[in-house]
Amino acid sequence: MTQQALVVLSGGQDSTTCLYWAIAGFGRDNVQTLTFDYGQRHRLELDCARQVAAFARVPHTVLPINTFAALGGNALTDETVAVTAALDPQTRLPNTFVPGRNLIFLTFAAACAYPRGIEHLVIGASQTDYSGYPDCRENTFKALEQALRLGMAADFTIHAPLMFLSKQETVELAQALGALPAMVYTHTCYHGRQPPCGECPACVLRAKGFAEAGLLDPLVARFQGVTR
Amino acid sequence: MTQQALVVLSGGQDSTTCLYWAIAGFGRDNVQTLTFDYGQRHRLELDCARQVAAFARVPHTVLPINTFAALGGNALTDETVAVTAALDPQTRLPNTFVPGRNLIFLTFAAACAYPRGIEHLVIGASQTDYSGYPDCRENTFKALEQALRLGMAADFTIHAPLMFLSKQETVELAQALGALPAMVYTHTCYHGRQPPCGECPACVLRAKGFAEAGLLDPLVARFQGVTR
Repeated sequence: MTQQALVVLSGGQDSTTCLYWAIAGFGRDNVQTLTFDYGQRHRLELDCARQVAAFARVPHTVLPINTFAALGGNALTDETVAVTAALDPQTRLPNTFVPGRNLIFLTFAAACAYPRGIEHLVIGASQTDYSGYPDCRENTFKALEQALRLGMAADFTIHAPLMFLSKQETVELAQALGALPAMVYTHTCYHGRQPPCGECPACVLRAKGFAEAGLLDPLVARFQGVTR
Repeated sequence: MTQQALVVLSGGQDSTTCLYWAIAGFGRDNVQTLTFDYGQRHRLELDCARQVAAFARVPHTVLPINTFAALGGNALTDETVAVTAALDPQTRLPNTFVPGRNLIFLTFAAACAYPRGIEHLVIGASQTDYSGYPDCRENTFKALEQALRLGMAADFTIHAPLMFLSKQETVELAQALGALPAMVYTHTCYHGRQPPCGECPACVLRAKGFAEAGLLDPLVARFQGVTR
């Protein structure tokens, strides 16, 4: 049986790199993409995901999740909460932390993959991410992989190819995979600005990765000469 | 710190029994309930859950999940699919199987419990259930419990007190816990009928449990003399 992969595509740099990693490993005809419309503040992200999938010529599914917004209380979905770089003193996590978000994304990805006969799930999470989200860690994914296998009686494998890469290494991997041209369609900014604000933690982290890899970010190049 | 529990309450017999199990173990003041509005065919179920929680005098939260309906293709949420007792020849599962439903329910329960400082999650799943759903098994829950602990950095415990009980034993447990009076507010029927149809697999299974325990089902008693 042909091995197929479903890539969780946010439309950002990391998931776009993962899409090209999956295309390189499974072949373009065996890769599909899945984006969650979970009430993210910036609808731009959904447009970016759609454009990245179209540019890469792979099927794209959008699934709604209205539950996170109903739970409320975090800066990624709740407009009444301001994004801040400060950590919550109790949890020592940024207020963009949505409890269990990657667990939910991967479980719904598995539920979507199941009837399509897809057993490989790919996600752009990274343990070296500055944020320290506990649901981005390798041991979390190993436990969840086991739960998905047992809970759906299917032989799922979760792939997180960026897990132990620095941002510089992620940029270098994107270059090696031919993913850089697609970066022009991605988003990065916590404030949802296009051109990106260049100042929020997400923009700063992305810029650092490209600078260390010695490459110009195609997204920055796209807006060169454009006033922010 | 006081231990608190969040009970996933569908408004059926099993989750109602679990609610009383939690009240007995944690104390009424330390128990909350959570019901998912996930597009179930019969809105009656949400009313039943609300009434059971009110009767038991415990807080009740309803969280929407619009994702299962968007995934489509199963008899519990898709009106174009008829409920049948026959098993799918490929998966050997009934067509009421929603891939990963309990994984999603428990993960969202954990996300709901997290900011409330609740670490005990209670669900009415049973491995001895006739249906053979793989996401009702003990080993699935153990793996998921590990994923939730790691993924949210919290000390969650998943309790499934009915896991190894027969339907007769579940009825006997409900009686011992004083849960039987609440059964008058529960639902059972796959066809969403009130009074229950008495003929679908869910009605037949429930009737068998009460018959073997030698008890009259309060829900049946409620409608005695009422024409179906």
